Amino acid sequence: MVQDSTGIPLRQLAERCGVELAGNGDVRIDHIASLDAADRGAIAFLSSPRYRSHLATTRASAVIVTPADAAATALPKLVTANPYATYARVAAVLHPLATAAPGVHPTAVVASSARVAPEATIGPGAVIGERASIAARARIEAGTVVGEECSVGEDCILHPKVVLYPRTVVGPRTIVHSGAVIGADGFGMAEESGRWVKVPQLGRAVIGADVEIGANTTIDRGAIGDTVIEDDVKLDNQIQIGHNCHIGAHTAIAGCAGIAGSTRIGRNCKIGGAAMIAGHLEIVDGTVIGAASGVGDSITVAGAYNGGLPALPQREWMRLLAALMRLRSLVERVRALERGRAEGES
Amino acid sequence: MVQDSTGIPLRQLAERCGVELAGNGDVRIDHIASLDAADRGAIAFLSSPRYRSHLATTRASAVIVTPADAAATALPKLVTANPYATYARVAAVLHPLATAAPGVHPTAVVASSARVAPEATIGPGAVIGERASIAARARIEAGTVVGEECSVGEDCILHPKVVLYPRTVVGPRTIVHSGAVIGADGFGMAEESGRWVKVPQLGRAVIGADVEIGANTTIDRGAIGDTVIEDDVKLDNQIQIGHNCHIGAHTAIAGCAGIAGSTRIGRNCKIGGAAMIAGHLEIVDGTVIGAASGVGDSITVAGAYNGGLPALPQREWMRLLAALMRLRSLVERVRALERGRAEGES
Amino acid sequence: MVQDSTGIPLRQLAERCGVELAGNGDVRIDHIASLDAADRGAIAFLSSPRYRSHLATTRASAVIVTPADAAATALPKLVTANPYATYARVAAVLHPLATAAPGVHPTAVVASSARVAPEATIGPGAVIGERASIAARARIEAGTVVGEECSVGEDCILHPKVVLYPRTVVGPRTIVHSGAVIGADGFGMAEESGRWVKVPQLGRAVIGADVEIGANTTIDRGAIGDTVIEDDVKLDNQIQIGHNCHIGAHTAIAGCAGIAGSTRIGRNCKIGGAAMIAGHLEIVDGTVIGAASGVGDSITVAGAYNGGLPALPQREWMRLLAALMRLRSLVERVRALERGRAEGES
Repeated sequence: MVQDSTGIPLRQLAERCGVELAGNGDVRIDHIASLDAADRGAIAFLSSPRYRSHLATTRASAVIVTPADAAATALPKLVTANPYATYARVAAVLHPLATAAPGVHPTAVVASSARVAPEATIGPGAVIGERASIAARARIEAGTVVGEECSVGEDCILHPKVVLYPRTVVGPRTIVHSGAVIGADGFGMAEESGRWVKVPQLGRAVIGADVEIGANTTIDRGAIGDTVIEDDVKLDNQIQIGHNCHIGAHTAIAGCAGIAGSTRIGRNCKIGGAAMIAGHLEIVDGTVIGAASGVGDSITVAGAYNGGLPALPQREWMRLLAALMRLRSLVERVRALERGRAEGES
Repeated sequence: MVQDSTGIPLRQLAERCGVELAGNGDVRIDHIASLDAADRGAIAFLSSPRYRSHLATTRASAVIVTPADAAATALPKLVTANPYATYARVAAVLHPLATAAPGVHPTAVVASSARVAPEATIGPGAVIGERASIAARARIEAGTVVGEECSVGEDCILHPKVVLYPRTVVGPRTIVHSGAVIGADGFGMAEESGRWVKVPQLGRAVIGADVEIGANTTIDRGAIGDTVIEDDVKLDNQIQIGHNCHIGAHTAIAGCAGIAGSTRIGRNCKIGGAAMIAGHLEIVDGTVIGAASGVGDSITVAGAYNGGLPALPQREWMRLLAALMRLRSLVERVRALERGRAEGES
Repeated sequence: MVQDSTGIPLRQLAERCGVELAGNGDVRIDHIASLDAADRGAIAFLSSPRYRSHLATTRASAVIVTPADAAATALPKLVTANPYATYARVAAVLHPLATAAPGVHPTAVVASSARVAPEATIGPGAVIGERASIAARARIEAGTVVGEECSVGEDCILHPKVVLYPRTVVGPRTIVHSGAVIGADGFGMAEESGRWVKVPQLGRAVIGADVEIGANTTIDRGAIGDTVIEDDVKLDNQIQIGHNCHIGAHTAIAGCAGIAGSTRIGRNCKIGGAAMIAGHLEIVDGTVIGAASGVGDSITVAGAYNGGLPALPQREWMRLLAALMRLRSLVERVRALERGRAEGES
């Protein structure tokens, strides 16, 4: 097969990913696949015991397994305590990102006072504002707008149609997906005689290194101080983060979640999809919040929290709702029964 | 009235929409209106019995009714089992979409290796990547970015500021509204020693024919395989669809809904607004999920499901919450009463 | 200190904001700060009694306080019934918006039939459609698309990457943040034999004066009539407003909320973040809806409404859910106890 002459020897993948090799290190790997869909040239991984039975039947050329699973297959393998992380590294080696040729596209509009590193790439129709700086190897893709005095770090990727409002800071290696808007005005206004007076939003949005921000996610800038997203925070799509929030390092937030203004989320938290967190709260490091939960109070003890009701068949749901609406009268009725019993006993 | 000489004879509307004409087929119709707001030249429709009383007083020149309602009005009419669908067809005849002149706007940026059909329209500032193909009569509107190796089918409309990430496939006649982002990286990362390792997202987003995708909706591409949206799926605004989801044909999803990764939704489902569906589930064909419901388990029996709690006046809600928080102690108290009664009986 | 020679005398701030001055009106103010973070040249405000203790220790050069708090500090001050609104005004004086030079950027694409006021600013890559009108001092920023026959009022700001679909109307002084899409097709389709027929969306989106629309918010145009957002409505980020909605003047809606089609919300309402309101409802003036509430019925009595469940520690939540699932059997058991007691009494 031609495939055997392409790809990368398994031995080399083991070295580049810093994991143990077992079996034939000369087998050549040229793509990633799942255990059941794999074919020749593929490497697949097993991280969940649920799929262990696939190990016996996979047609992959090599597998990534834990030491505990290593004996279960005779295939060449990478042995690692964390097969999923190793899979991620192997996939990055086998499928490197397309590189972009450095330079400024002739249709881009770069302000004369902006500083763009010669190794950076500015795509078609992108706009770089006055006094903005774009560091080496950063990629500003088609139609993205970098406002005045923004700073974009080395090796960042701003996908097409991102908007950074003026003075936004983005740390190195951060990836921002299309449609994300960073640094827009927070939702601040004062009520006066039934009308609204806009409160100027004077802070910035400051995004750390190695952050990833999903498509159409919005992060408002601070009202007076800054909104801060620390290093290695991972935000999925369609998330809303209000002004003056502070998200600690390594925290991951799934899609459609919303964090109201001035809330401080700790490090290494995991927030489920569509979770909604009220403003002015403190959530301690290591908190795990379930999908679709509503958080209305600060969380001071790390652990798992939940609040999302599961959908039921329509008829059962209607009955449950009806019972819920009578819950207070049920409490009264139990109280009456308790009184009756107490009287009966006396 | 001049209006009588313009418009389209009712007879012709009946023919073009394939429905029965009753009454004067020469009356000319030039616009659509609701029964109560209609005036001369208008055609209105009655699909809900709630509005039947308007039939007697409407000033429309013609109406669209079911056979059961036909006798209730002497107006010229289109008689059809499905007045709303006939209304949709009549409206499309009376108010055709503005056509776009074919050709590539001089400010668009089309890669030299892209194939753009001569009858396609590429708007101002649009960007078409290398090896992308744009089929006949497709409209790529202002500022839309079509990534490398994308394929856009015949008669598609991509409204302004849509982003298709590289390798996205869009079937014929599909409409994508502004701000939608299709094919962005899924939310995949492996945890390792408290940090995140990005998992490369290698699949595609594959969108079928006759799909409509709402404004600012996001559909991530697959991690290994593809995310698939089948034919005639209708997605409202601000929906998030995670990587490797599969949405069956003719399914409609209302605004703000979220579908986490790898979930498979069947054909002809209806998902309510703001419904949140967890990842790795299977939802059978024909399932109906109520607005704001949270679905955490697979649904194997077609039918209606619900889970959204209704808001109550603040005071009632506080009391209900207080009762809920004591629900477990209520269970204990009932058990104690049952024990007491059993003892009393013995 | 050099700072004393810059800034604006407190007396002048009092005059420009129309509030009472107490103490030294010559002190110069050049920035805004919070009470605890303030330094020389700063003005800070106290609106919540929670922070009154900061009054004694703040290093601000002046403060904004209520008459009740005025005696609590010897600092120069602005005395006003509404310190937060005064703060908003002072901040706007001290930190005026950067002005934009009028004119059309050479990379913008303005249709020949569009009318652009000479004092308006059209940014790089912006697109103005046929017969659109842009009034004096309006700012259409980079990459924003104004569709055919749109009207944008005086002093509007459309931030980068906004899309107005054709025929959208935006009143004077309205601010639209990046990624907002106004006037896209509503979610209208008729079901016919298991397929969908698109219902043409023929109305407009009509936005009043002094409105603010957050990043990535979507407002669909009407199906037959118009979607209407009245004057001084404030919409946060990521909000979805369906076709034919009508939002009354001075109403504020927080982030991630969704309003389904044809719902009418009154004046001076406050809708919390992530609240979801069903279609075809009427919500009276002055209604306050809590965060994450689901509203499924019209509200005819003004007041506060709530519906969001609070998250609990995982174990407590699982127990509560289990008790909830048995709630109906609990009702039965209480009924049995009541019957038993009635029999015992007889």
